[in-house]
This record gives sequence, C-alpha cells and structure tokens, in this order.
Amino acid sequence: MGREFDLINRYFSRPVPPGYLGGGDDCALLPVRPGKKLAVSTDLLVEGRHFFSDVSASSLGHKALAVNLSDLAAMGATPLGCVLGLAIPAIDDAWLSGFSDGFYALAEQAGCPLVGGDTTWAKKITLSITVFGEVDAACALRRDAARVDDDIWVTGMLGAPHMALLLLQDALPADVRGQMLLHESALRQALELPQPPLVFGMRLAGLAHAALDISDGFLQDLGHILTASNCGAYIRYDDLPVHPALSGLPDALRQDAVLSGGDVYQLCFTAAPAVREAIQAQAQACGVRVTRVGTITPEAGRQHVVRDNGAVVQVTRQGFQHF
Amino acid sequence: MGREFDLINRYFSRPVPPGYLGGGDDCALLPVRPGKKLAVSTDLLVEGRHFFSDVSASSLGHKALAVNLSDLAAMGATPLGCVLGLAIPAIDDAWLSGFSDGFYALAEQAGCPLVGGDTTWAKKITLSITVFGEVDAACALRRDAARVDDDIWVTGMLGAPHMALLLLQDALPADVRGQMLLHESALRQALELPQPPLVFGMRLAGLAHAALDISDGFLQDLGHILTASNCGAYIRYDDLPVHPALSGLPDALRQDAVLSGGDVYQLCFTAAPAVREAIQAQAQACGVRVTRVGTITPEAGRQHVVRDNGAVVQVTRQGFQHF
Repeated sequence: MGREFDLINRYFSRPVPPGYLGGGDDCALLPVRPGKKLAVSTDLLVEGRHFFSDVSASSLGHKALAVNLSDLAAMGATPLGCVLGLAIPAIDDAWLSGFSDGFYALAEQAGCPLVGGDTTWAKKITLSITVFGEVDAACALRRDAARVDDDIWVTGMLGAPHMALLLLQDALPADVRGQMLLHESALRQALELPQPPLVFGMRLAGLAHAALDISDGFLQDLGHILTASNCGAYIRYDDLPVHPALSGLPDALRQDAVLSGGDVYQLCFTAAPAVREAIQAQAQACGVRVTRVGTITPEAGRQHVVRDNGAVVQVTRQGFQHF
Repeated sequence: MGREFDLINRYFSRPVPPGYLGGGDDCALLPVRPGKKLAVSTDLLVEGRHFFSDVSASSLGHKALAVNLSDLAAMGATPLGCVLGLAIPAIDDAWLSGFSDGFYALAEQAGCPLVGGDTTWAKKITLSITVFGEVDAACALRRDAARVDDDIWVTGMLGAPHMALLLLQDALPADVRGQMLLHESALRQALELPQPPLVFGMRLAGLAHAALDISDGFLQDLGHILTASNCGAYIRYDDLPVHPALSGLPDALRQDAVLSGGDVYQLCFTAAPAVREAIQAQAQACGVRVTRVGTITPEAGRQHVVRDNGAVVQVTRQGFQHF
C-alpha cells in the first residue's frame, strides 16, 4: 500500500452516513432523491493566490469547504457530500491534523460528508473541492431569474474580508492600519472563517428569484445577475450593510471595500416585494441578517449606485480578477 | 467581467444536454434517475508529477478526463457529467484550444458533458477533474465483493504505459532503448491516449463481482480487491496480456512493467466461472479484449504469481507511490 493510503486512512476516512459508500473504492456513492436535480460546484485554491502560506491549517480546512458550500447556498441546494483533492509539499502531521479537523467540523455542521478524494505532491499547497447538493429544478436560485421591480437583498455584512486582506498584505496607510489593527481578530475571522448562510439559502429556494454569492465583490457578482437576467439595478449605497470595523474609514477605501471587495461568502438575491415579510421571517428563523439594498430596473446591464443625498457613486473597480 | 469569464466563454462553454444547467451559475444542475445512486470520483493532476511539461495539450485534455472515466468504468457506472478545475501559468490560446478540443472529444464520445469548472493561476499546470455517474447500488462493482473461486480477468493489455514512461524519462539501457524506439508511437499512445472500457464497465455491473482500474499497477490494485474482500489470488503469469511492444524485453524489466507498471486505465475484475461466456460475449460486443489470468483463493491477502513451468515469480515492487 502506498503512503497515499496511509494518509487518507489517517486523516480523511471518518464515517459516511448510511446509504453512502465512502472513499476507498473507485467512486463514492451518494443518494439523490427522486425528482431532485444534482447541484455541483467546484473550486481550485492555490497557496499564495487564494490563501496565505501562513494561514492556520484548521482555518484553511474550514474555508476551502465554506467557499463551495456558499455556491450550494446561492443555488438553494441541500448538501449531499463533497470530495477533496489535496496536493501538498510534504506530509506534515500537525498540518494535516489541523486541516482535516477544520474541514470535518464544517462538513458535519453543514451535513455535507466528505466521501472521497485524491492526494498528491505539489510545491504549493493546492486544494480542489467539489460539492454536491440536491434541489428541485423549478426552485433553484438561478442567476438569470431576476425580474424588474424585484427587491435586491444582501445577507450578512460587506467589506471586512477585503480590509483583512489589505491588513495582512501590509497595503494600508499607517493611520488606517492602526485603526484596522484594533479590529484585527474580527476582520481575520470574516476572511478566514466565513459562514455561508446554507440553511437560509435552502429556504430561499421557491421564495426568491435570482441569487449569487458575493465571492468576487458585490457589484461584480450583482452584474452577473443583471447580465444573465437582462436587467439593471438601482442600489441605495447608504443602505448597504457595512461591517462595523469599517466605520471611520476614508470614503474611497470604504467604498471600494464594500462595493468591490471579494471573499464575502454571503448571498445577493432578488425577490418580489410581496415576499418581504416571508424573507424577514426565514432570516430570523435562521439567525441570518438580511438587508434590502435596492431594486431591479429594466435598464439592461446598468448599475446605478446612489447615496441618500442623491449623489451618484462613481465605481472605479468591479472586483476580483482571476488572472 | 474578469478574464476568467472570457477564458471560460471561449474554451469551456460548449452546450450541455437538455435537462442540464451548465456553467455560469453558482452550481451546475444534472439529472439523476430515480433508484440510481450518484457515483463520484475526483483526481488532482500536477505538471511534472502526473504528466510531462511537453505533453501535447490535446493529449493532456483527453487523458485528464480518461483517468476519471476509468473510475466510473471500474464501478459499472453510466457517466452523467464532469467538472474541471484548471490552474495555468498564463493564458496561451493554442494550448487552451488544444486542451479543450482533446477534453471535449472524449467527453462527447463518452456521453459525459462538461458542466462547470473553475480557472485560476498557478506556476505549474494543475488539473482537477471530478466525474459523476449513476449506478444501481446493488450492481455497483465494489472492491470488497470478490468471492473465493472467482475468475480474475483483465481488460486490454499490460506494460506499455510503463515502458513509455521509461523511454520518455531516458531511463533505459541503450540496447533496450533502441528496441523500444521502434515502438515509440504505440507506446506513447498507450500512455497519453488511454481508452478506458466505459461501455463494457457498465455491462459488467450485475455480471461481475469486484472491479478496479489498474492505474497504480496490476498487483497493487488487485491487492486492494484482496484486502477489501479478505481473500487471496493465484495469478498465471504467462496468461497475462502483455503489450506486443514488450516482447523480447529482458525478463526482469518485462515482469516489472507487467506486474507493477501503472497508468493502465483498464479493468481488473472478478466474476463467477459460470458467467465466463456472458463476459466474453459482452466484451466482443464492446470491442474490448478480456483475458482470464487467475483465480481468487481463500488465503487472505496472498498474491501467488506462478509461471506455466511451475516457477514462482518473485515480486520486487508493488506499483505507483503517490508520495
């Protein structure tokens, strides 16, 4: 038996639920209920590009799964399971133990068992995660389903992961850096331990029209809904839910973090004004913060961001560039 | 829109079948028929570790998918679709065009549409592929299902990918190298363009007991069946189907290539002697070569490899080490 098998046996072989076949065979087997469609999402995360080399192994395990669960949430899908591809430069027991603990803790919390994977060697840590869920095709929250006059909603708060990144990259002016250091732990938690609103996403299926996670930045991801749905958006800038650590920031920096900062594994979704109360009730039941921030308009592709005083916000950057 | 979207739109957005939702949303949606289980397999392939830097892009696209389809075949599953994670050092149009052509050609041939993915930057080309299939749980070809007195079968031929590797790595003595160069094109084809017996695998479901692909070497992979099924194997060395390019090789080199050489995306499976004719008939219908090479014994974990003259073959190496 190769060392791959030792590694998988030691760190990645916790039991799977009844009705499943876990790792060790050519394929894992999972149940999908009749009438449901299989929802699938995959991410490839590379050290130095998507995460810092010195991030804690446990946080990385959590986040690698969280960013994919966020895609299931944005589709309104119920998790079925996940597979993990892991390329590492060396077998480091402390690291593997921390990584698998962080991964499994979220997998158990989300009801998304790890059913299989692949391990190999690479100079830079590289993670590939694929998650599976099931959803009624008619209720899936697709990006092409926004309708004119829909409310635009956001879960959670914006801006903190972007400020955490700038802080960790030492890319802030000295005075701002000092201010952000006061909130370092809250900012890092927002960046490293995102909690996508998975149960709330499932409850939005059939209630909301379009949804997307805000992983590449609010305006960029909302733009994908607008393009796919052939409509525009009117955004009330002063209504956007901004992380409290950002209060007192210079205007330009705050605006960039809120409108274009990525790594926010929360949802932007659209829904008819008639279901406002139902949405608030579901959010409350799930312990999720929701905020109405604008309206879908008929002007295809146009994002109009306006302050309470009527001033139009000029947008300088859309969001995360993958290349 | 980021450049990621251009790249996906240009190379990885061919149409998906009716009833599917392809890339562009948070998740892809696929149908799974009632009563079937979802079969899932994932692989992570790294440049310089799993493939040479100078392999043709089209061959790489083919092989990346083939190694995963091989896992579906070894489970007896019918392909539903796949997702691709692609990390590349730069956007090279000729390479991307070749890679996507090779990938799509096999995906179409296998009925396994590409439904989604993720692209990013990495110094070394890194590919993560996850394939989905469906299978009757009761008929799935699991590695723990071999029974004493089962025949042991092999599809295709053994040894060629290993000799291709040694040739490309310039790791052969001069006289052997000269002999192998005469067969370079056939050897490279076996290494770079594997054709896993997908349709035959589906037909084995319900007919054979245990199955596995021979990606890590015949004896190592057969060993996984023996361990999981708590039995042993008697192998008739002279009955093993050896690639014709290997005839005339020194004994030790030939034996190592045949028994321990990896990268053979063919099946090793076990089945009751009563279904020999049914297996031959299915193989003929699928145009797949099958060979009976031994018998499952009650001696747990013991692999006994014997020549026609009664000599016992001493095995020096099991197969591919992942670390």
